[in-house]
Amino acid sequence: MSVPRSASNTTTAVSSNHTPLVDPTRFPAVADGEVRAAHRLYEHLIGIWAPGVIEAAQDLGAFAALTEGPATAAALAETLGTDLRATRVLLDGLSAYDVVQRTRGADGQAVYTLPAELHGVFAPDGLYSLAGKIGHDRNVAWSAWRNLARNVRDGARTSDGAEQLNQISEEDYTSLVRGINFWAPPIVRPLAERLRTTGWGTGSGRTLLDVGCGTGIYSHLLLKEFPELSATGLDVGRIVPIAEAQAAQLGVADRFRCVTGDFWNDEWTGDTDLALFVNIFHLQTPESARDLLLKSAKALSDDGVIAIADHIVDEEEGEDSTQNRFFRLFAASMLATGGGDAFTVHDYDQWLSDAGLRRVGLLDTPMHRVLLASHA
Amino acid sequence: MSVPRSASNTTTAVSSNHTPLVDPTRFPAVADGEVRAAHRLYEHLIGIWAPGVIEAAQDLGAFAALTEGPATAAALAETLGTDLRATRVLLDGLSAYDVVQRTRGADGQAVYTLPAELHGVFAPDGLYSLAGKIGHDRNVAWSAWRNLARNVRDGARTSDGAEQLNQISEEDYTSLVRGINFWAPPIVRPLAERLRTTGWGTGSGRTLLDVGCGTGIYSHLLLKEFPELSATGLDVGRIVPIAEAQAAQLGVADRFRCVTGDFWNDEWTGDTDLALFVNIFHLQTPESARDLLLKSAKALSDDGVIAIADHIVDEEEGEDSTQNRFFRLFAASMLATGGGDAFTVHDYDQWLSDAGLRRVGLLDTPMHRVLLASHA
Repeated sequence: MSVPRSASNTTTAVSSNHTPLVDPTRFPAVADGEVRAAHRLYEHLIGIWAPGVIEAAQDLGAFAALTEGPATAAALAETLGTDLRATRVLLDGLSAYDVVQRTRGADGQAVYTLPAELHGVFAPDGLYSLAGKIGHDRNVAWSAWRNLARNVRDGARTSDGAEQLNQISEEDYTSLVRGINFWAPPIVRPLAERLRTTGWGTGSGRTLLDVGCGTGIYSHLLLKEFPELSATGLDVGRIVPIAEAQAAQLGVADRFRCVTGDFWNDEWTGDTDLALFVNIFHLQTPESARDLLLKSAKALSDDGVIAIADHIVDEEEGEDSTQNRFFRLFAASMLATGGGDAFTVHDYDQWLSDAGLRRVGLLDTPMHRVLLASHA
Repeated sequence: MSVPRSASNTTTAVSSNHTPLVDPTRFPAVADGEVRAAHRLYEHLIGIWAPGVIEAAQDLGAFAALTEGPATAAALAETLGTDLRATRVLLDGLSAYDVVQRTRGADGQAVYTLPAELHGVFAPDGLYSLAGKIGHDRNVAWSAWRNLARNVRDGARTSDGAEQLNQISEEDYTSLVRGINFWAPPIVRPLAERLRTTGWGTGSGRTLLDVGCGTGIYSHLLLKEFPELSATGLDVGRIVPIAEAQAAQLGVADRFRCVTGDFWNDEWTGDTDLALFVNIFHLQTPESARDLLLKSAKALSDDGVIAIADHIVDEEEGEDSTQNRFFRLFAASMLATGGGDAFTVHDYDQWLSDAGLRRVGLLDTPMHRVLLASHA
């Protein structure tokens, strides 16, 4: 495999979330740079408004109510037991972000509709729901981001100098892993295509080891892509029933098992054909990242592949690629909540080399990169 | 004057603050709508990251230090007394939002530069500084937005049913008014052009009454546009020295006076040629807005003009105009902090009519509209 880069990264990406709140066509021709820059900064500062209105609506049950059908502000306020004018303001705010659609009913009153593709996104049990992510943000993110300066001062270290652990309790972790399933489909699809192109996955008895599998969504989607594959997920105990139930839901339970393991101290299954790490490496230190790859190398079959889906900064790609920007900010997010970093392709290449491995591919996805490696 | 609308509003406005964090070119062709929608929502939810990194950097004095000159993460960490790795992560986060520029020095280390046009934006005493806005946000906005649901439930009312006052203390108000001067230049310029087009402002002895003038920036810039004009600003006592100092700084002190007044109970100067209200009406109730216009009508000279710069929703403009979206969200912001609303052109037209006035113009600016009115 080579390391092909797509030309499309050099085109200007238009955000899927493009809601400009400053009209730049309305600056006088003579407006000085400082005034324009201040407007740009102001628009960054009001970024807080988006989670503000969306999370409030979720808290109040507005999305659940709108999943039942479109409503006026008056009808929704009655359903939710909220103030009428305030409910109208909230709904109008959601419409400004295109989270609800605002139309005029026959009597001239505004009617608010939650688009069908968002019904599952706010439902607690939706396969690609963000409900768990929202819950986690409300418990952890607001306070962590408000107080980021503190962690920049002390490096997110505890009083005894140790690196602060990621502020994710086991309960939060359970909630959070169920809230980020939506990342999986646009990661699994190009990964499966690349594996198929190289001839991997043909033949029976292929095995996948999904380290820190969470809900198992990556395993489950890969099992659907490769009917001869069987997968083992490794994670903490309280995750096991979630992952197994989801395997059943997606019709792959007979080829998936989730085992509880201490993946630092236990031996891994030898003869692994695909070792998968999704959002695992960004939680490592450089030392533990190197250890993980040494361990992977030992468990990998001769023509096995290691796939690392993570926030991998590719400096050759230019600092201003969408992925690199997101990864830089994800690192800041980890600094806010304590622990983790976004490593560079260069970092990975060094760790791979130390483990007798080599990089054989790097795939861009909407919010991740997938690094592929095999024995050197 | 007619009410001309520009065609440019119908083109797609590209935000001055356009930092996409999801690469939409990387979705598989078959990606379903729910998965795309979840990515879009996630990007909204992480809007909180922008104020998080920018405010942390301001708190730590990073922008003040970078105004002295470009620095590496190591140099900046030493200056600020912060953790090296965490400082690097913070600077990389700022670069992802184009708040600092990241380049490679001769030795390969990243060097971070604060663009010149942002120096004044973060300086406490800069004419168009956001420092006061940032301070206000840190005191009020995080908690208000985190708890927006509560105000939607009870309509931001106090326990005795009264409408909650805007949570701006006098000290916050002083800080905030100094942090939103940057809005003035692209509002004053088209206003002055329109006044000039109609023949207003030619001749001597023209008078401007700037109701709730804050720092007086709108008066000061108009005085520079119209050398024959003199202006009176009305505001609370602690604002007066700020407004008068700024008038001196901008060379218009001889034609500007700031007076303390209770603009509800005191009579206004008669024979006002321009009555100016900037960001005043959005803090009114419909009743007090109507009263303000009745009072303005009485004080206005025969050919006088009322100019209202505010978040004025123009439903004819289409819900998805940049201005309307911003105004809807500004209303939600006022709901979060208590008090205020974004009224529609239709609302204003009714209040104007009740006061014997009529609308004679509506101008778009980057984040406001300016409504012009005269005697009917």
